[in-house]
Formats: sequence, C-alpha cells, structure tokens
Amino acid sequence: MDFFFNPRGIALVGATANTNKVGFSILKNLSASFKGEIYPVNPRYSDIDGFKCYASVTEVPDPVDLAIVFVPAPMVPRIIRECAQRGIPGAMIQSAGFAEVGEKGKALQDELTEIARLTGIRIWGPNCMGLVDAIHGKVFSFVSPAIWDEGLTGGSVSLVVQSGMLSAGFLIDLMTHGKMGISKACSIGNKADVDECDILEYLIEDPHTGAIALYLESIPEGRRFLDICTRSGKPIVALKGGRSLKGAQAAMSHTASLAGDREVVSGALAQAGVVEAADFGQMMDLARTLAMYPRVPGQGKSRIAVLTFSGAAGIVSTDLMDQEGLELADLSGDTIERLREIFPSWMPVSNPIDLWPAIEKSGSERAYREAVRAVCADPGVHALFLHVFVGGVTRHVDISTIVETARDARKPLFCWLIGKREETREFQMQAHELGMPVFREICRAVECMAAVLHGGKLRPQA
Amino acid sequence: MDFFFNPRGIALVGATANTNKVGFSILKNLSASFKGEIYPVNPRYSDIDGFKCYASVTEVPDPVDLAIVFVPAPMVPRIIRECAQRGIPGAMIQSAGFAEVGEKGKALQDELTEIARLTGIRIWGPNCMGLVDAIHGKVFSFVSPAIWDEGLTGGSVSLVVQSGMLSAGFLIDLMTHGKMGISKACSIGNKADVDECDILEYLIEDPHTGAIALYLESIPEGRRFLDICTRSGKPIVALKGGRSLKGAQAAMSHTASLAGDREVVSGALAQAGVVEAADFGQMMDLARTLAMYPRVPGQGKSRIAVLTFSGAAGIVSTDLMDQEGLELADLSGDTIERLREIFPSWMPVSNPIDLWPAIEKSGSERAYREAVRAVCADPGVHALFLHVFVGGVTRHVDISTIVETARDARKPLFCWLIGKREETREFQMQAHELGMPVFREICRAVECMAAVLHGGKLRPQA
Repeated sequence: MDFFFNPRGIALVGATANTNKVGFSILKNLSASFKGEIYPVNPRYSDIDGFKCYASVTEVPDPVDLAIVFVPAPMVPRIIRECAQRGIPGAMIQSAGFAEVGEKGKALQDELTEIARLTGIRIWGPNCMGLVDAIHGKVFSFVSPAIWDEGLTGGSVSLVVQSGMLSAGFLIDLMTHGKMGISKACSIGNKADVDECDILEYLIEDPHTGAIALYLESIPEGRRFLDICTRSGKPIVALKGGRSLKGAQAAMSHTASLAGDREVVSGALAQAGVVEAADFGQMMDLARTLAMYPRVPGQGKSRIAVLTFSGAAGIVSTDLMDQEGLELADLSGDTIERLREIFPSWMPVSNPIDLWPAIEKSGSERAYREAVRAVCADPGVHALFLHVFVGGVTRHVDISTIVETARDARKPLFCWLIGKREETREFQMQAHELGMPVFREICRAVECMAAVLHGGKLRPQA
Repeated sequence: MDFFFNPRGIALVGATANTNKVGFSILKNLSASFKGEIYPVNPRYSDIDGFKCYASVTEVPDPVDLAIVFVPAPMVPRIIRECAQRGIPGAMIQSAGFAEVGEKGKALQDELTEIARLTGIRIWGPNCMGLVDAIHGKVFSFVSPAIWDEGLTGGSVSLVVQSGMLSAGFLIDLMTHGKMGISKACSIGNKADVDECDILEYLIEDPHTGAIALYLESIPEGRRFLDICTRSGKPIVALKGGRSLKGAQAAMSHTASLAGDREVVSGALAQAGVVEAADFGQMMDLARTLAMYPRVPGQGKSRIAVLTFSGAAGIVSTDLMDQEGLELADLSGDTIERLREIFPSWMPVSNPIDLWPAIEKSGSERAYREAVRAVCADPGVHALFLHVFVGGVTRHVDISTIVETARDARKPLFCWLIGKREETREFQMQAHELGMPVFREICRAVECMAAVLHGGKLRPQA
C-alpha cells in the first residue's frame, strides 16, 4: 500500500490544460505539493503547464508507482489495464459514474474489481477524492486549491472517508478554524478494490498517525474490519452512515453501499474497541482527543475535578458528566487546605471548584496554576476539566505550566473555552500544540472525556 | 419592572475611583452606555471620573429610578433601606456574599427580602451581574469592558441567567463570534426578591424580545412560572442546572438553590411548552432558531427536503433526523422533473438531494436557487435543510433569494455550514440578518429543527 502514500512518480491520466476542469486541478495540486516525478497523460497535448505530456500511460518513463485517473467512467477499465501492463502497482480513480449511478456503472466497477483480482494492480476508488497528506504536504486530489491558502496544518488524526466532497469541505473547515490539523485524509469512494481495511492496516503502522477517524457507509468485510480494530494499538473512531432505514437507502444511491443493521453494527464496533460517533464534528473531536490520550493510566477510573470561572458552568458540567457516567471527585482534606490558600477566607471550597473568588484574590494565573497543582496531587482525582474564559480577566492562564503539571501527574486534562474570537482561536491553537484538547461546548468536552476515561470497549458513543 | 430596564437616573452605590475595582468598572460601563443621569455614591469622594459624587443615596437628586449597589454584603441592608426611604423604586445588588456563602450570608439575604416586602422596593440580585441591553446599548453591570471592543450586536433573544460570570463570558463569546446578537441579558443571581417570573412577564411583553432563554438553578415559584410559560406567546427555552444529584449539591453552594427532581421538572416544562436544553450553546441555538420561527404553519408536520453538496452529509443528516422523529419528504414527480433540469442526465434524483452534480453542471448559484424553488413548490415538503460549503465552489449561493423563496412558501429553512473561517463567519452573519438559522454541526441543526417543527409541547429536548 505504500506506493499510494509515497510514490516516486505519478502518472496523471486525464490531465488537461483547461483550467476549469478537474484534470487541471489535480495537476495543479500535484505540482504544488509533490516532490517526485509527475507525468500528465492525454493524447491531445504534448505538454501541459510546463510538464511533458504523454499520449498513453504505457509511454510514461520510470519511476512511476501510482496512476491517478480522471477520465470518463467508460474509458477507465481500459486505462487500468494499461496501467497494469505498464507495471504500475497502484491506481487511484477519482472519476465518478460507477456503482453509484446504477446498473451500467455497477458493471464498469465490477470490471475494475476483476482487473485488480487478475493483474494484482491495487485500485483506490472510483468516485473518490484521493489522498491529502498534511504532514508531508502532498495533495493527490482535485480538492479545491483553497486548502492551500492558509497552509496545511499537520496533526495526528488520520481520516478515512467514503465520500469525496465531504473530505474536501471538512479539511478546509478544520484547517482554517484552528481547531485541528490532520495527518492523512483518505477519500476511498466506492471501494472497487482498496477498502477501509487496507487503509486501516496501513495507518495503524503509520508513525505519523496517532488516531484514526472513519466515515463509512458499508463495512462489507465486517469480520476482517473488526479483527483489525481489535488488534489496533491506536484509537479508532467510526461514524457509520445509513444507520436509519432512510439513511441506508440514501447510502445505497451515494456509494452503492448496503448498510447493516444499526444495533448489530454498534454492538460489534463497541466490542472491537471502536468509539462510535453520530456526526462529523463529534467524530473529529473524539479522534483528536483520543490521539492526545490514547492510553490513560487506570482507565475506567473517572472521578473528575472541575475548575471553573462560573458556578453555573460547573453545575451544568456536573449534570452532563452524570449522564455519561463520570463523577465529581471528592477532594481530600489536604487538597481543600491547599486550595484555601488562593481563595478568600469566606469562600467554602468544593468540587466543582468555582475559581472566580480565587481569581479576584490571587489573579487568574496563580489561581489556575495552584488549583491545578492541588487537584493533580490528590489521589482521588483522575482527570481535570478546566473552564477558561479568554478576552477578559482570566486571559492570563499559563497553559504550558498547567499542561505540564497534569502530564507529570498522568491525569488527562480537558478544557472548555469561551471568549473573544481571536483570543479563543489563539488559546485553542496553543493548547492543542501543547497537548490539551479544547472544546467550545461543555457537552462535547464531556463526550470526549467519557471516550478517553471509559474507552470504546467499555462504553460506546452515539 | 420597567424602572430596571429604562430608568431616568441611576445611583451607583459603591462607586470608586480605583480603576482595579468593580465599583469603577460599573461606573465606566454606565458612562459609556447610559444616556440618563448617573450619580456615584461614596462618602470618600467628591467626584469620580468627572461625575459629582454623593456621600449617601439619600442626597442624590431627581430623577433616580434605580440604585446599582456594589458594597460589602454586611453594608447592603442599610443601603437598601436608604434607597427605599429616598423613594427609589428598584435596587440591583451586584455584590456577592449572601446565601451562597452560608448561614451568615443567608441571614443578610433574608433581611433584604424582608425590606422588599415591607417597603415595596424591588430588589434585583444579590450576587448577580445585572443587565445588558444590547439593542439600546445599555450596560448596567461590571461585565468586562471587552464587551465593547467589537460593539454590542442586537438580536431578538433575551437571556435570563442565575449566574454572573457566565452571562459575561457568554455575551462576549456570542458577540465576537458572529453567531448571534442578544436583546436583553439579565443576570438575576440569588433572587432575594425579583425572580425569573418577574423578568419573564416583562420580557414576554417586551417588543424587542422574540424568544427567551433561561438558565435556572431553582424554580421556587413553580406554579407561577409554568403558568407564565403556558400563556407566553413567545418561545421559551430553559436550561435547568442541578438536574443530577451532584449537580444539585453544586447548585446549593452556587446560588443556594434547592433543585427539584429531574423528571418532574422536565415533564412540567414540556407541558408548559418550554423547550428544554442541556447545555449553554444548545440553549442559545434553540432560542435564536425559535425566535426566527416562533409559529410554524402546520406545526407537527416534519417532512424535510435535504439539499446537500455531499452525499455523506445527506446520509448522516437523515440518520440524525430519524433519531429526532423527523422524516425525509417524498418528492413529487413534478419536483423530480424540475430538479432534473439542473442535474446531468445520468444522475438519478432523490431526497437527500446531492446537488454536487448539479453544481458542476449548472453552477452553484443556479443549482441551489432552482433546487430550493422546486422543493418549496412541493406540498409534500414541510421544511428545508440546506448544506452549504463556503470558500470553495459553492461559495456563490444567493442567500437572499433562497430565504425569500422559502419565506414565500412558508417553509422553515435551516442551514448547515462548513468552509473557510472568514467566509463562514460572513455567510453566517448575512444569513442571520436575513432570517435563516445557520449551524456548524449537523446534530445541532437537527435538534433545532425538531424544536421548531415539533414544538416544546409535543417533544421536549434533552
């Protein structure tokens, strides 16, 4: 599978000089991102945008490990046969018009599967958006060049999606909101040959992937998929499309997927340690959180200290935690003594810890730092839920000291953040850099906390 | 109650020239926002920041309809007696140190309640953050001046919260993220006298309030509260803090609230037509959506047309809608005929409608506009769920035509938006201006859709 991710040379079949066409977008993205050889293939040109153009894939020189194909669907099987003859180990078909459009397309796609079986060429797609590797800055895709505007931000979550547009829109959204970077985004489409199992096996061994998020409409090789997940040393989060009857019908027309029974699928995923998500944003939040806390010491323990600037937020956090089976820690006498040092004398201290009076008395930097130290030293506290408000008085929070204190104590730390727009974005990016997950809604923070502390095997999401 | 919202003159008891103190922040906010008379009261100054300062509230000249009080708790009862003597109809006590800190504070607070009962003065607070009226630009509060930096954005949701810091942080967050404006934000604290019922009655009659969101830790006058909600012609969304046992204990130490049994409270709220929320962001999203669609014709009908740029997003929407009891509309033959005009001939059209091929063929502006027209004309479609991706190809969406088409057809329209950061913010602000609610997560959009289409009386949230 490595030829898909690290090819030495790429043939682009269906390259065009027409700047409005997808075949041009792919070429532009390759030339902006790929350091290896690029060979446009199109009999109508001798060169495109400075690249020598070849009439057929059979004429492309070495080295060539990957063919990216964007030609009308009926032409695709012939092209793939030529790729196989030329000895190219992998083809990534980004054209649509296969099983998702009915019987005729289905026949074309079956032909592709048969070619793969007979010749050994591996086929990625069709009806997909290809691959984006944000860490190494490779874009093997027609994804909008808007993705480049603010740079690709590398991260530790790799994404596998059975959809094209979504991965594109999603990447651009994630990249520009400062919420998270991505390692590899793999859009696998109709899965004529390469499927989520193949990609998963690759990503589990990939040193640049910390956690894997999958959007799937079908899991045809169910047993193999579950075996891979069970063996995985990395957290896996899955969003299964087509869980409802109407959703399953829609999945059929989208990627010709036969969706399975909802409860059977959910049960099997949980059994295999997969955390199930119900929406895209939630899936990514779960994955980036699990990438930060893949193995929590004493997993299953879930007594939390809540450090807040707002009594109300502490109460609502407690209610939402209760729903997820997460409990407030009972603070030890020592901890309460330590906390009293930063609080005014009139203030009774209990968990959730409303830091506001301490902030007024001791300043926000000291109040947060000392409160985190105190609860980290308490053996009855297993995790911390920090509430921060930036752009006001609690702007001065020394994130790096806090993160270090929690890491030394081996206690996962989660942060709910509100405040002014630019300040929240800066705080968020700095916190993620340091390894503290930040959330903009309490409910989402609590869902992710539950996934980390209870693990997928104990308690499925959804 | 109008003297709290529209006083002619305000006495600020506890005003100070010390710029680090809350008594100075309140004065600064008043002088920046309030057009009426401002009378600082503090025996230690003859003037503060250009304002003549009075030794006692009894010396303050006319007109004075409101006293804002920020002095140490033990001094407060004497001050309030003086206010009553002076004939001031309302006092807003922003100091803390009352029932939330134990027996001694409780006694002070009881004294306040008694003074209100005996003298007729109305008391707002204590332990609260006062009032922000974003439409008229009035800030009767020590809320951080950061709120001014990007201007107060008026909106149609009024907020009632039993918490101080939260309303401050929340306002700043809401204002600066372009997500929504606010009408009045009322932080009512310990409710020694004025409570959510008094404020609710006022807001229900307030022409600048379209919907009301409440965060409450207790509802002591339960029957009166439910009666007011039942009679309300405006949508009401409530988040009840302290629903869990531990949360209820935390509520006790926060605002000395005795929280009621979770299921009893939820049932009664639903009965009274209140939509219940589980988190702050959700509460505000529900309220701003219901303010846009307070009375949906044919409420209870809930067959939705989903217009998407991503098959996967259409499927996940369908699954999430199914969970909330919302169904996909069956498109009529006429509608499918009309849709075929914008789609390539190979594309089978069904709901969820994956517009991507239509966007490629007809351009995004035309594809969205014509698809919205087609489904709006279909009697089997009761509401529209639009997915938009900005910063890429679907950037050109003519929001105003789409909103107008849906409004003419009297069909509520909801939008899920992803894309580049600046573009999403602009789109969001423009859409809200025009009256289309925009959401950044599918699940949240679907929750709000269910609240509009099923109504609080039929189906409680949370």
